[in-house]
Amino acid sequence: MATVPLLSDEEASAETLAVFDDIRATRGTDYVNNFWRALAHDPALLRATWERLKVVMGPGALDPLVKEMIYVAVSTANGCEYCVHSHTAAARAKGMTPAQHSEMLAVIGMAMQTNGIVTGLQVPVDDLFKA
Amino acid sequence: MATVPLLSDEEASAETLAVFDDIRATRGTDYVNNFWRALAHDPALLRATWERLKVVMGPGALDPLVKEMIYVAVSTANGCEYCVHSHTAAARAKGMTPAQHSEMLAVIGMAMQTNGIVTGLQVPVDDLFKA
Amino acid sequence: MATVPLLSDEEASAETLAVFDDIRATRGTDYVNNFWRALAHDPALLRATWERLKVVMGPGALDPLVKEMIYVAVSTANGCEYCVHSHTAAARAKGMTPAQHSEMLAVIGMAMQTNGIVTGLQVPVDDLFKA
Amino acid sequence: MATVPLLSDEEASAETLAVFDDIRATRGTDYVNNFWRALAHDPALLRATWERLKVVMGPGALDPLVKEMIYVAVSTANGCEYCVHSHTAAARAKGMTPAQHSEMLAVIGMAMQTNGIVTGLQVPVDDLFKA
Amino acid sequence: MATVPLLSDEEASAETLAVFDDIRATRGTDYVNNFWRALAHDPALLRATWERLKVVMGPGALDPLVKEMIYVAVSTANGCEYCVHSHTAAARAKGMTPAQHSEMLAVIGMAMQTNGIVTGLQVPVDDLFKA
Amino acid sequence: MATVPLLSDEEASAETLAVFDDIRATRGTDYVNNFWRALAHDPALLRATWERLKVVMGPGALDPLVKEMIYVAVSTANGCEYCVHSHTAAARAKGMTPAQHSEMLAVIGMAMQTNGIVTGLQVPVDDLFKA
Repeated sequence: MATVPLLSDEEASAETLAVFDDIRATRGTDYVNNFWRALAHDPALLRATWERLKVVMGPGALDPLVKEMIYVAVSTANGCEYCVHSHTAAARAKGMTPAQHSEMLAVIGMAMQTNGIVTGLQVPVDDLFKA
Repeated sequence: MATVPLLSDEEASAETLAVFDDIRATRGTDYVNNFWRALAHDPALLRATWERLKVVMGPGALDPLVKEMIYVAVSTANGCEYCVHSHTAAARAKGMTPAQHSEMLAVIGMAMQTNGIVTGLQVPVDDLFKA
Repeated sequence: MATVPLLSDEEASAETLAVFDDIRATRGTDYVNNFWRALAHDPALLRATWERLKVVMGPGALDPLVKEMIYVAVSTANGCEYCVHSHTAAARAKGMTPAQHSEMLAVIGMAMQTNGIVTGLQVPVDDLFKA
Repeated sequence: MATVPLLSDEEASAETLAVFDDIRATRGTDYVNNFWRALAHDPALLRATWERLKVVMGPGALDPLVKEMIYVAVSTANGCEYCVHSHTAAARAKGMTPAQHSEMLAVIGMAMQTNGIVTGLQVPVDDLFKA
Repeated sequence: MATVPLLSDEEASAETLAVFDDIRATRGTDYVNNFWRALAHDPALLRATWERLKVVMGPGALDPLVKEMIYVAVSTANGCEYCVHSHTAAARAKGMTPAQHSEMLAVIGMAMQTNGIVTGLQVPVDDLFKA
Repeated sequence: MATVPLLSDEEASAETLAVFDDIRATRGTDYVNNFWRALAHDPALLRATWERLKVVMGPGALDPLVKEMIYVAVSTANGCEYCVHSHTAAARAKGMTPAQHSEMLAVIGMAMQTNGIVTGLQVPVDDLFKA
């Protein structure tokens, strides 16, 4: 179904396996999801993406759960089925409750709705909002 | 610049003014921003949008600041200039720090990046992620 | 502001002027809007786009005003500022009333909202809907 | 496949069933489609979405069929598979002929095409188009 | 699965078959892919789309492989699953190597990422970039 | 206009200035464009973005000019005004001719058009296209 075959551990190069091992160790699970197995054909792109993801999604000024919800919001607006599924699962793993999931969806829907109305009206930005 | 004229208080109908008054009272400010002044031509759409926004963006299972950041994330992915400005301003008013703003942008960028790579690869959803 | 200069009649080639003349004759106005003046650098692309537009937007199974509203809806979802402005103006020229404009915006907003919620929920298509 | 289980009538709460009943009565059918069954986990969001949909998509200044076509246009530009299917089905139920379907697709394609060319050229909005 | 049935050669009209024959002759294959079989219900739209595609994607100032990669890039950003698959296959048929595929994906990801960050920051266009 | 102030060299931190210097040296120009000046508030995000951009956009299996055109294609589909301007300028600096620019726009338009028609038709992917 993908535009490239997904690589199993047996098919992966040593460089790719090293990234898979880090994914496993970081997440405390043996499971390596399909995204990384599709990226496995290009160990350099695989590593760059994974290393950056670790930094961006790790603890910082924002809670990791909040980061996952922002990720789901972007992925939803972009219509990325895989990303919606994987980051909704990640948000749940980080503690998102059904009530939080539901409110997130309501906010996404509200934002989409006003994005459409504002764009249809071509509302000019208030001076007050400019930095 | 908008596709309709923005209505001043003087030009607004009584129904529209009633919504403007509720916006002012709810937000504790005299300022009514351009989005509502453009919507003012249709008091029913204005009221429905405002009433729903109050419910969705108010306190609940998610923090109001988190809701604003989800709003900005969706608006950014949709390329809605007005919405990015107005909800970044709203997020700041609800306490978003420069470090949080910066991390939010990094997460949005990361999500956009992997949305593109996943879609280009057409990665199938892992069974594990399905509810 | 454009990524190419807009061509005046004086700067346009004979091939480009022939298309400009057909735009003027078809629309019954002397005004040639900026889109065509930006396309004027490539007479072949200009002509192909204009000839196709005439066919697609002309009378047929759908009313020309309905076609303009579909055009605005797509342009709004894609965030195309120029297209929203030009086709809202075209819809008005074809008789769109303020009440119709307002309802169109409400439908666009409703569609955007449920697009977001459906995508966030990843709702599977009902068998009933399949052709 | 969805990020939440779809609720059957047996699994639904009394509040949810009340909305399902109104959907059935309004549409004159026993069938409740998957979107509502996925939303059923949050009776408040379910009700708000359904109540608003009834108002927006009902008779008014625009014909209900025209509204469905605008809905399909937005859903297509946003790439929402479910929404394209469900609202194409709804448009057919409201009388859309194959010729109208085909013209709608041609207009959507035309709009997408010029959205892309205009954005690539960054054409400035003509003063004439501004309200 | 499509919103219209796909037409076999037996079901196609004479006008549609003439286009199918040209697709076969131009591409040197007997296979007519699903896109054309879905468009087959409207011979005029089928012919206009195919005739235009031949012109746009043929040899010119850009290499046909480069054109396919631009096509994949647009289709990826728009989340069009069918188009990503069909034009990735076309790019491969025109010689795209795995290393080129991988670099294309990295560029798409980079562009998506900075599109998001730039839009979130609402960076004003430098005077230097204006034509 | 941006959601953050753009930083001049005088306002930038030492870490930020080090990245600015590398941008200048790599590009052989004194000019640092607004994107980097807006990112300058977060030296870590600035550096990560710049370092990655250098790798991704540099020479490899694809020509740097082809990479810029892919970048413009994605940015156009996403409606990112700044990115369209800056990467069209970059493509020109790398040798894009007016004829190539024009063909790129025609391909983007063609892709957008068929993205819309395919999505409206919900065409299923041919088995032949699957990897």
